[in-house]
Amino acid sequence: MLPQIKERTAGLHQYGTAGGLAVYERLGNLPLKNWQQGSWPQAEAISGVRMAETILTDTYACGGCPIGCGRVVEVGEGPYAGVRGAGPEYETCAAMGSLCLIDDLSAIAKLNELCNRYGLDTISAGGVIAFAMEARERGLLDEGPIWGDAQGAIELLHKIARREGELSWLLGEGVRRAAEKLGGRALDFAMHVKGLELPMHDPRAYFSVAVGYATSNRGACHLQAFSHLFERVLTMPELGYPEVLPRDQAEGKGEMVAKLQNLMALFDSLKLCKFVLFGGVTLAPILTWFNCVTGWDLDQGQFLRIGERIFNLKRLFNVRLGVSRKDDWLPLRLLVHRRGEGGAPDALPPLGPMLADYYAYRGWDEEGIPTPEKLAELGLTDL
Amino acid sequence: MLPQIKERTAGLHQYGTAGGLAVYERLGNLPLKNWQQGSWPQAEAISGVRMAETILTDTYACGGCPIGCGRVVEVGEGPYAGVRGAGPEYETCAAMGSLCLIDDLSAIAKLNELCNRYGLDTISAGGVIAFAMEARERGLLDEGPIWGDAQGAIELLHKIARREGELSWLLGEGVRRAAEKLGGRALDFAMHVKGLELPMHDPRAYFSVAVGYATSNRGACHLQAFSHLFERVLTMPELGYPEVLPRDQAEGKGEMVAKLQNLMALFDSLKLCKFVLFGGVTLAPILTWFNCVTGWDLDQGQFLRIGERIFNLKRLFNVRLGVSRKDDWLPLRLLVHRRGEGGAPDALPPLGPMLADYYAYRGWDEEGIPTPEKLAELGLTDL
Repeated sequence: MLPQIKERTAGLHQYGTAGGLAVYERLGNLPLKNWQQGSWPQAEAISGVRMAETILTDTYACGGCPIGCGRVVEVGEGPYAGVRGAGPEYETCAAMGSLCLIDDLSAIAKLNELCNRYGLDTISAGGVIAFAMEARERGLLDEGPIWGDAQGAIELLHKIARREGELSWLLGEGVRRAAEKLGGRALDFAMHVKGLELPMHDPRAYFSVAVGYATSNRGACHLQAFSHLFERVLTMPELGYPEVLPRDQAEGKGEMVAKLQNLMALFDSLKLCKFVLFGGVTLAPILTWFNCVTGWDLDQGQFLRIGERIFNLKRLFNVRLGVSRKDDWLPLRLLVHRRGEGGAPDALPPLGPMLADYYAYRGWDEEGIPTPEKLAELGLTDL
Repeated sequence: MLPQIKERTAGLHQYGTAGGLAVYERLGNLPLKNWQQGSWPQAEAISGVRMAETILTDTYACGGCPIGCGRVVEVGEGPYAGVRGAGPEYETCAAMGSLCLIDDLSAIAKLNELCNRYGLDTISAGGVIAFAMEARERGLLDEGPIWGDAQGAIELLHKIARREGELSWLLGEGVRRAAEKLGGRALDFAMHVKGLELPMHDPRAYFSVAVGYATSNRGACHLQAFSHLFERVLTMPELGYPEVLPRDQAEGKGEMVAKLQNLMALFDSLKLCKFVLFGGVTLAPILTWFNCVTGWDLDQGQFLRIGERIFNLKRLFNVRLGVSRKDDWLPLRLLVHRRGEGGAPDALPPLGPMLADYYAYRGWDEEGIPTPEKLAELGLTDL
C-alpha cells in the first residue's frame, strides 16, 4: 500500500500542507483579518506553492513516513535573512499570515522559527497577534502591531516569549484572558473555544467544523475530528460516508463529527498520522494492521468502541472540571458575521441543531453530560 | 372603531390574557418545567377559561379601554382562601404555573397577589422559582421547593421579598446572579437575557421571538417587539405583512422584528395598549389619530422614524454600558434543547443568521453597534 500512499500524496510532499492555502482562500476556509474578511488576493504569496518556488530547500518526513510533508526552508536575503530549518505548515502560514494580513512568506518563516525556538504554538501565537491587531485598530490597545505589520508581529512575539513589558503579560495569557481583562468590546472578537485559540479552518466554510471546534475536549481543534476534509475530498465508506458530504449542509453533521472524533482518537492512540487518509487508507486496512500487530481479533465495532471510550473518558475529565453545554459553543463572530464575499460569503453554521444531533448521537444528555446508560455501555461506570 | 375593537376582542374580555394558555401549550409556546418540557396535560387547569369558571368574580379595564382584559378574582375556600382582587394574567399563570409545574389556579392567584403586594414582577419571580426548583432537583440547592410545590413556592416568595435566610439572598438577585454564584451546571439552566428572566413565549415555537428577546434593550421582553403574534394571528399590511408569517421560518424575521420594535416603541411612547391590534387597528388609523391629536402632518415614514429613533437611542445607552453582540443572545437551552414532544417538538431557532439579518436591516455593524451613517440619518450624531 505504500506506493499508493506515496502516489496519492505527491502534492502534499511537493508543496507541504500549505499547498492548498490558495484553494482554501477561494473556498472561504482561510481565516483573514481575525476571521472578519471573506477574500484576500495575497493568499498565493504565502502558499506552499510559492514556498516551493522561493525559500524551500528540502523536505523531511517523520520516521517511516512515505509522504514527507515537512518543509525545510532558508531565507537568504532581506530583513529575515538567516532563517534556516523547519518551514511553516499550513496552520502557521494562515495563523501568522492571512489571519494577520501578513503577506510575506519570509516573515512567516521567521515567526515560525521564533515560535519553534521559544516553544510557542504557532496557532495560538498567531491568534493572539491577530487579536492584538484588532484591539489596536479598535483603540483598545495603544501599542502593538497593526494589520500586516510583520516586523511589529515579530517584536510582539519576542516580548510575549520573554514577558517584556505590560502588553506581554496581557497577551501572553492567550486571547480569552486578554479579552476578559480588556473587557467590553474585546469579548466580541476573542476567537477561542474553551480558552484555546482557533485553528485555521472556518466553520462558516465547513459546517461540521462548528461542531468539531465546539466539542473538542481541549478547546477548538481541527484534529480531534478532522471533519472538514470529509466535506471536501475524503470519504470513509466503513463509517457510512461513501461520498463527500456537502459542506454547507447541517443535517447529519453532528453524527459525522462524533464518529470521526472516535476514529481520530484511535488514530492518536496508535500514533498514526491522519494524512494517510489522503493516501486512500480507510478503516479496514488500519484494523487489519492493528489486529496483525496486536495479535487480537477485533471487529470494526469493537475497534471503534475503543475510540469512543477514549473520547468519552476525556469528556468526563472536562465534566468534572465543570464543562457542559455552556462551554460547547463558538465565538459569535462565526455564528453571526457574514463576510459578504469570497467562497462562503453568506454561510453561517446553525450550531444549535447540529449540537443537539451530536449530543443525541453520543448518548449524552442535553447539557452535554454522558448519561449513566452510555457510561455503562462503555464500561466506564466507575467514573 | 370602538364597537369593532370591542367585538373582535370579546374573547380577551371574557377570558383575559390567559384565555389562550391551553392553545399555547398545544403550539409548544407555553414554557414548562423551566423550558425543558414539551407538553403538559394540566395546562387547561390554569387557563383563563378555567379561571372564568371558578375564581373569576369580575373584570376591569384601564381608563377608556373598550376591551377590559383585567381579571378580578376571589378564592373562597381551600388553603388559599382569602385571595381577593386583581387576578393573574397569562404571563403570571405561565411563570408561576406551568414553568414550575404548578397546576393549582388558586395557588397561582395567591402567588400573583403576593407579587403585587410585595412589588415583585411576576415573570421574574416565577423565573427565579423555576430556577430554584431545577437547582434543587439537580442537587445544587438542598432547600427550596420542588417541581409543582405551590406551598413551597409561596414560602420562597415570602422569604425572597423579606430577604429571610441565605437562600433569599442568593435567589433574590435574579437567576443570572444566582447562577453565577452557584457556578458550574447552574449556568446551563439560568434562563435570562441581559440579566432579565424570560417572558412566557418560547423562541422554539415562534422563531421571531429569538431575535426579539436577544435584542430587546431591557433584556428578554415579549413586548418590545410583540412579534410572536404576527406569527400567529396578526397582520400589518402597512409594514409589508399582509399575511401571518410562518412561525418556524427564519427568513425575514430579523427585519420583521426590527420593524415591529420601532412600531412598539411608538406604541409605548403614545401609551397605547398593544391589544388594540387584536381589535383590527393597524398603523393607518393610529397615524390619523396621532395627527388629529397633535395637529402635525406626519406621513407613515416620518412616524415610524420616531420609533426607530427611540429604539436606537435606547440601544446607545446600552452600548455605552458595554452591550454588544456578545449580549444579544439566548440561553443555550433554547438553541440546543429539542423538547421532543408537544407543538414544536424539534424546532430550534437559527439565531445566528436571523441576528445577522437584523443588524443589517437596522444599519448596525456586525457587533450590533449603530453605524455613524445610521446615527446621522436619525439625527442622533451627537451621541
